[in-house]
Amino acid sequence: MMNDILKKPRKVYVTRTIEFNAAHRLYSTDLSDDENRELYGKCSNTYGHGHNYELEITVSGIVDRATGFLLDMKELKKILEKEIMSRFDHKHLNFDVEELRDMVPSTEILAVTVWDILTTALQRYINKGITLHEVTIHETRKNSVRYLGE
Amino acid sequence: MMNDILKKPRKVYVTRTIEFNAAHRLYSTDLSDDENRELYGKCSNTYGHGHNYELEITVSGIVDRATGFLLDMKELKKILEKEIMSRFDHKHLNFDVEELRDMVPSTEILAVTVWDILTTALQRYINKGITLHEVTIHETRKNSVRYLGE
Amino acid sequence: MMNDILKKPRKVYVTRTIEFNAAHRLYSTDLSDDENRELYGKCSNTYGHGHNYELEITVSGIVDRATGFLLDMKELKKILEKEIMSRFDHKHLNFDVEELRDMVPSTEILAVTVWDILTTALQRYINKGITLHEVTIHETRKNSVRYLGE
Amino acid sequence: MMNDILKKPRKVYVTRTIEFNAAHRLYSTDLSDDENRELYGKCSNTYGHGHNYELEITVSGIVDRATGFLLDMKELKKILEKEIMSRFDHKHLNFDVEELRDMVPSTEILAVTVWDILTTALQRYINKGITLHEVTIHETRKNSVRYLGE
Amino acid sequence: MMNDILKKPRKVYVTRTIEFNAAHRLYSTDLSDDENRELYGKCSNTYGHGHNYELEITVSGIVDRATGFLLDMKELKKILEKEIMSRFDHKHLNFDVEELRDMVPSTEILAVTVWDILTTALQRYINKGITLHEVTIHETRKNSVRYLGE
Amino acid sequence: MMNDILKKPRKVYVTRTIEFNAAHRLYSTDLSDDENRELYGKCSNTYGHGHNYELEITVSGIVDRATGFLLDMKELKKILEKEIMSRFDHKHLNFDVEELRDMVPSTEILAVTVWDILTTALQRYINKGITLHEVTIHETRKNSVRYLGE
Repeated sequence: MMNDILKKPRKVYVTRTIEFNAAHRLYSTDLSDDENRELYGKCSNTYGHGHNYELEITVSGIVDRATGFLLDMKELKKILEKEIMSRFDHKHLNFDVEELRDMVPSTEILAVTVWDILTTALQRYINKGITLHEVTIHETRKNSVRYLGE
Repeated sequence: MMNDILKKPRKVYVTRTIEFNAAHRLYSTDLSDDENRELYGKCSNTYGHGHNYELEITVSGIVDRATGFLLDMKELKKILEKEIMSRFDHKHLNFDVEELRDMVPSTEILAVTVWDILTTALQRYINKGITLHEVTIHETRKNSVRYLGE
Repeated sequence: MMNDILKKPRKVYVTRTIEFNAAHRLYSTDLSDDENRELYGKCSNTYGHGHNYELEITVSGIVDRATGFLLDMKELKKILEKEIMSRFDHKHLNFDVEELRDMVPSTEILAVTVWDILTTALQRYINKGITLHEVTIHETRKNSVRYLGE
Repeated sequence: MMNDILKKPRKVYVTRTIEFNAAHRLYSTDLSDDENRELYGKCSNTYGHGHNYELEITVSGIVDRATGFLLDMKELKKILEKEIMSRFDHKHLNFDVEELRDMVPSTEILAVTVWDILTTALQRYINKGITLHEVTIHETRKNSVRYLGE
Repeated sequence: MMNDILKKPRKVYVTRTIEFNAAHRLYSTDLSDDENRELYGKCSNTYGHGHNYELEITVSGIVDRATGFLLDMKELKKILEKEIMSRFDHKHLNFDVEELRDMVPSTEILAVTVWDILTTALQRYINKGITLHEVTIHETRKNSVRYLGE
Repeated sequence: MMNDILKKPRKVYVTRTIEFNAAHRLYSTDLSDDENRELYGKCSNTYGHGHNYELEITVSGIVDRATGFLLDMKELKKILEKEIMSRFDHKHLNFDVEELRDMVPSTEILAVTVWDILTTALQRYINKGITLHEVTIHETRKNSVRYLGE
């Protein structure tokens, strides 16, 4: 049906945006309390603070000629629900997330962690040539971090 | 100078938008753990979660003929910095904020608390006819609470 | 517990924002095709067009001293899911929505319709003093309509 | 046709959002240069600075049973184009706008000025019961002023 | 004039954001009704639904030393008006758009179609080294597709 | 501590968003007044107009194993305050900014200028492998320019 426009392969980048609400504290056990305060400032306050984290998850590959989709968004939503939302949403990143144990939960570390989790979860799509392309996390409207697996 | 347009008094509403990042946990000490879980769901997870709280603070009064302002925004910014940002920003609302002690830090309670704090802080403007009109807090892009002192 | 701040009743306005995606066509069966084109312009194109409708639903009442909430947001979400999302989301407003039969589905009509539906659905809260306060619908970033039951 | 839902009169508030880009300088000829600097700070820099002003113009009245509209948006757009955009867009508010001559072009003054201009321009709707309800101007994402004709 | 900063060629990416409002239905004539429902879910409802599609059109090339522009934005706006807005705005993508005939109007297909149309329309700029770089379409705040001609 | 996830080097892109408010006029001294009007239209009005310029500054490099950061955001904020905000905020770009003297202050020129300024200011990070990756400037919600040093 869609022969004409999809006769040649078309590589697209599909982005799904999700949001989770979490607490975190920037604190390194390798440093003294004073060094933590000096390095992380108010971000190292004892009980933590929190954010509405906005994530843009981008996958890429060739548009499927039968469906007109890169991939079934309903499936991607299920994966993001299971792998990201259930792990991070309404959690304290320093206490509740196994993958962040002993880590400083900076936005950089969080972006890399989400990438590692999703790369594994999206293995099933590799034989269709669909791969994770980019993870961007907006901590606030002013700060964001992007990771592309480099 | 601005005689013409300000010859008759003009009542305006000036809104300043600020954002603080905080953690909170919805948990009532009057209820059992099971009741808390039933009532507050994932919002009562043990270590708390967090938000980028966006606040819209609205004051109202007559435009000043000498300045063209309702009030000096530099002064209002100082008040908001001292009364709101230093109290709530990068804090855990359940542990760090005196005014919220023994409270469930819901957005409703937070809006009322901010109103009470600012009403007191803005007393100095009352003789100029400038009063707090509205406090709106956006917890997420989907949920917000407005309080007008009623 | 929350005796101090809630000792006097506090009336708050709680807003929940939802979005549905729908098609519509502005076309009145009382008018000729030419009159429709003249009045509604491109909005009366034969097969319709569509929007991401963003709705702000505001309810008001006194904060509950036991919970710190106006009402349980999980309940409100269920009502909005059942009454609004299932009726309007991914629908063609001219064909699929019983309540809009024989109506021109303008944003004005839509706002009033949503108000009427929700006023009925929220009857159960009346004995708690909680009532629908406002329905605002954003058709695009440039056009919106507000209805307060007047 | 729309007898059922519009059998009783329904008062709605319709908001149109427009944006203009302008320069301005806060400077009062009634004050010395030092007083201006003290009062207006960097906003009184000699050559001015500028903003993307976002305006929300709200009119209110009863929904028309024949059209399902409060008023024809195409007409309102023409009025806003002629009265607001052509006057303020891509202008320096201190030099190019007759109505602001000898005024300090603060957002407060601007909101009142836009109100006065539109009240006059919308006279033609008065016999239909349609009146200007509110003018809100966002100078930045953080500062806005609302005027309701009080 | 601008010798200093433009002495070496500077390659920039200029993005213009436009929005059109359209209806669509995801439905493949190659599949049975049941298969369509299974694959496309509510997106295949009979009469279609709709969106405010937001498009970011990015062109790239070397900044012109005479004008300080990559290209005249007034020209680009005309091209986008003629090629995109008049084709897609206030249309039903399944019925009204020649280029999408017999296609499933998914966001992926739409992004590729817009790319193909604009690549042709922008041929006139090729001798100036200006080419289409990227087409991004946001179907909702949560879903978007990017195509770069790969 | 963060051995596991940072055992292999991870290249991230960190973006800081800032906003300045400035006036500008598009006018080339190499052209006649008529040519300026023809080329720049209303953007060449005599006294200038203005914008809320939103800048996204992106730096890239390997996440630091000791801190979990690419770089200390407090330092980056200081640099942006000193180099960008103090130079451009609340200024008229044609008169107040040394670096733009004799230039047409288009968004293209502005993006390249900000890049040149920040490349110099960020020299101190080069030995840590941290470099400026991208400067994006949004002049309005509809127009933006990206420069990557190409």
